[in-house]
Amino acid sequence: MNELLTIYEVGPRDGLQNQPTLVSGRDKTALIGKLVAAGLGHIEATSFVSPRAVPQMADAPDVLAAAMNNHSEVRFSALVVNPRGYHRARAAGAQSIAVVAVLSETLAGKNNRMSAQDSVAMAADLAGRAHREGVACRVYLAPAWVCPYHGAVPQPTVLAAADRMWQAGVGQLALADTIGHAHPLEVGRLCEKVASRCDASRLAVHLHDTQALGLANAAAALSAGIRTVDASIGGLGGCPFAPGAAGNLATEDLVLMAEKMGFSTGVDLDSLWRAVDFAQALVGRDLGGRTAAWWRSHRRATPDSPYNTDVAGCGSLLRDH
Amino acid sequence: MNELLTIYEVGPRDGLQNQPTLVSGRDKTALIGKLVAAGLGHIEATSFVSPRAVPQMADAPDVLAAAMNNHSEVRFSALVVNPRGYHRARAAGAQSIAVVAVLSETLAGKNNRMSAQDSVAMAADLAGRAHREGVACRVYLAPAWVCPYHGAVPQPTVLAAADRMWQAGVGQLALADTIGHAHPLEVGRLCEKVASRCDASRLAVHLHDTQALGLANAAAALSAGIRTVDASIGGLGGCPFAPGAAGNLATEDLVLMAEKMGFSTGVDLDSLWRAVDFAQALVGRDLGGRTAAWWRSHRRATPDSPYNTDVAGCGSLLRDH
Repeated sequence: MNELLTIYEVGPRDGLQNQPTLVSGRDKTALIGKLVAAGLGHIEATSFVSPRAVPQMADAPDVLAAAMNNHSEVRFSALVVNPRGYHRARAAGAQSIAVVAVLSETLAGKNNRMSAQDSVAMAADLAGRAHREGVACRVYLAPAWVCPYHGAVPQPTVLAAADRMWQAGVGQLALADTIGHAHPLEVGRLCEKVASRCDASRLAVHLHDTQALGLANAAAALSAGIRTVDASIGGLGGCPFAPGAAGNLATEDLVLMAEKMGFSTGVDLDSLWRAVDFAQALVGRDLGGRTAAWWRSHRRATPDSPYNTDVAGCGSLLRDH
Repeated sequence: MNELLTIYEVGPRDGLQNQPTLVSGRDKTALIGKLVAAGLGHIEATSFVSPRAVPQMADAPDVLAAAMNNHSEVRFSALVVNPRGYHRARAAGAQSIAVVAVLSETLAGKNNRMSAQDSVAMAADLAGRAHREGVACRVYLAPAWVCPYHGAVPQPTVLAAADRMWQAGVGQLALADTIGHAHPLEVGRLCEKVASRCDASRLAVHLHDTQALGLANAAAALSAGIRTVDASIGGLGGCPFAPGAAGNLATEDLVLMAEKMGFSTGVDLDSLWRAVDFAQALVGRDLGGRTAAWWRSHRRATPDSPYNTDVAGCGSLLRDH
């Protein structure tokens, strides 16, 4: 098989944005360096949002500039939630932006202080503007499955918003399981449905792992033809408005599963775990996705199993079946 | 949808068999009572194996008799690995047995001190005998995907063994990911392939969660039409010959995902978590599958989210999308 799978790394943005410990711009830059060294080529580096609301992202211009200077081969995106953020991101040199269209009334009110309708309209405006200005643009449709306040998000709502974004000229749509409550059947169904109305290569899924369904949902999306999946190093992240939410789908979990399934991610697991260790030191607590216990035990090489002898490259481990 | 999903609970056998703390027959009986109270209707209660090799199962006759006496509505199985075990199980009143056909040379040697060919032949003999004697019989084909010593198990090996068991009159075949190294694509593929040669309703999957792919693999099996999935309370278990192996797919993880997907398992999550707590006390360490953190946080009800108000029945939580 060896189809390519693009991993869109959101750790520096979605992962860090709610961390109580303020991480320095220098440390963020170092973390990004480790992610790039592991082979990640698409990274959401920061967000241009209100520094009062999200102090962790106050250094967005510096972090983005450093990332783009240090790694010209990587595509760095910056999240914006309104035209003001778009201006700031552009002024800082952003060539790729990510916009959120909030599909739930209550979340739109809490997150953006506007109605869901206005949030969708604003995202479409920004996507259109980016298109005209030659800036790459992804739009998150969030939540695409389950809202913590209203429950199930009606599929027609998602499809209408998707259509609107395509018409506006969006480059990529990311269907977001914002609080990690979607299940594999509905993930597969919606992915297939949206893909049938557009080019599937322009679709992504953004999954959280709250109910431990991150990998199962990712597998369902892959089966539905999705070839861009978001993930966050060490499983960093989580939605501030979803009580009990765990973090994002962990990059290391996704890489392990995808490579075993025969996809090429271009990511080296050993290097990726060095990035996990580094992120752990930054936030001052244990990180690592669902595969952490296995990985750590696997690294304590056991001589009589072939599964424990090829620690460095994981080659035989990942690809021999 | 609301299709039925049968959960085949293996905690009292696969879960407990390698626990270093010896659990009393009385406690095993109490655990089984809690599993039944949670709604589980198919339970592998014990195994009739050498008490020297597996001291934890030395009380098999008593545990099986107590279970069958206390809960006549439940189907209890007993694992056997040879004719001697079959005799003992029958003498103890077993109406349902489970046999292992080991498909890997090295595992067959270590586990059963015989060749893989002899292990398959023995399982077929026992299945035929059970069939003639009116005893329900399941055969595990193990490992069906990945062997810790030889890597990938060739699909023709599995298919030939499956055919042989059907010919012998086996009631149910369980494809086993013994060490938890299979990935969702190959789980789906093999399930579809075996199902195409028999009645899919007579197939089961037995999954371990070593690499955190238990739920993703279960979802793939469900998509392939499998309607019996093995699980172990609290994720208890693990293969003694697989270094670094985690336990079985946790029953509570499977129930949460399956009910969200629209299947009826007949299991009540609240009661199931009481069984997890009880099992935890028995083995003296923390248990709980991948959903444990979410569940515990969910139980600390947060008033402004509908997701946290229906704690008792999980009804709205599980079924509103």
